[in-house]
Amino acid sequence: MILKKMLDVPAEPVRMEGAEGVTVRVLFGPDDNAPTVAMRLFELAPDGHTPFHAHGFEHEVIVLEGDIAMVTPDGDKLLVANDVVLVMPDEKHRFKNRSDTAPARFICLVPIAYQQ
Amino acid sequence: MILKKMLDVPAEPVRMEGAEGVTVRVLFGPDDNAPTVAMRLFELAPDGHTPFHAHGFEHEVIVLEGDIAMVTPDGDKLLVANDVVLVMPDEKHRFKNRSDTAPARFICLVPIAYQQ
Repeated sequence: MILKKMLDVPAEPVRMEGAEGVTVRVLFGPDDNAPTVAMRLFELAPDGHTPFHAHGFEHEVIVLEGDIAMVTPDGDKLLVANDVVLVMPDEKHRFKNRSDTAPARFICLVPIAYQQ
Repeated sequence: MILKKMLDVPAEPVRMEGAEGVTVRVLFGPDDNAPTVAMRLFELAPDGHTPFHAHGFEHEVIVLEGDIAMVTPDGDKLLVANDVVLVMPDEKHRFKNRSDTAPARFICLVPIAYQQ
């Protein structure tokens, strides 16, 4: 078994087009031989956001901290700690920090095949 | 997409032999058409614990709250909020609440095929 403290895992900037002020920590991924799912911790700086995009695999998300808008084609859904979201394949989405002072953090799970 | 507040999902007692004072909430599972992984929220009552067992699939665990001992054949590993654990297939484990006054909560992910 592998035990980690989340914040001991190094944070890397997310350089994907459309991302602003986002870092990711791969908590469990291919390097850990995770069999099924990759676990990543995302941090959004104040006003930071992920790309507004869709892809052919799902996300399962757990909000740990902060005040987040999940932007969707049907409008914004507001997320706070202890909210969980299942974004289905091909559903367009963005996670945006609504605060201009505090960071926001969420876990995002993807099938292991989609973790670089 | 499906958005839930964790604590709005009904908690069910875990009746598995060897479990004491444990409830589970299936946050995302077969009923939600989760494609890859089931997300469950476990709560351990004071002194509560899961069975000391092993199985042919992995767990990915995120500790949200409390003071937990992960019991293993190599001794106890202490877990607190923001710790994450990858328990590999066939590794024996138990999660035990070390507090006799406060509950403990953790997310436990399993491949969807293993969620009843």
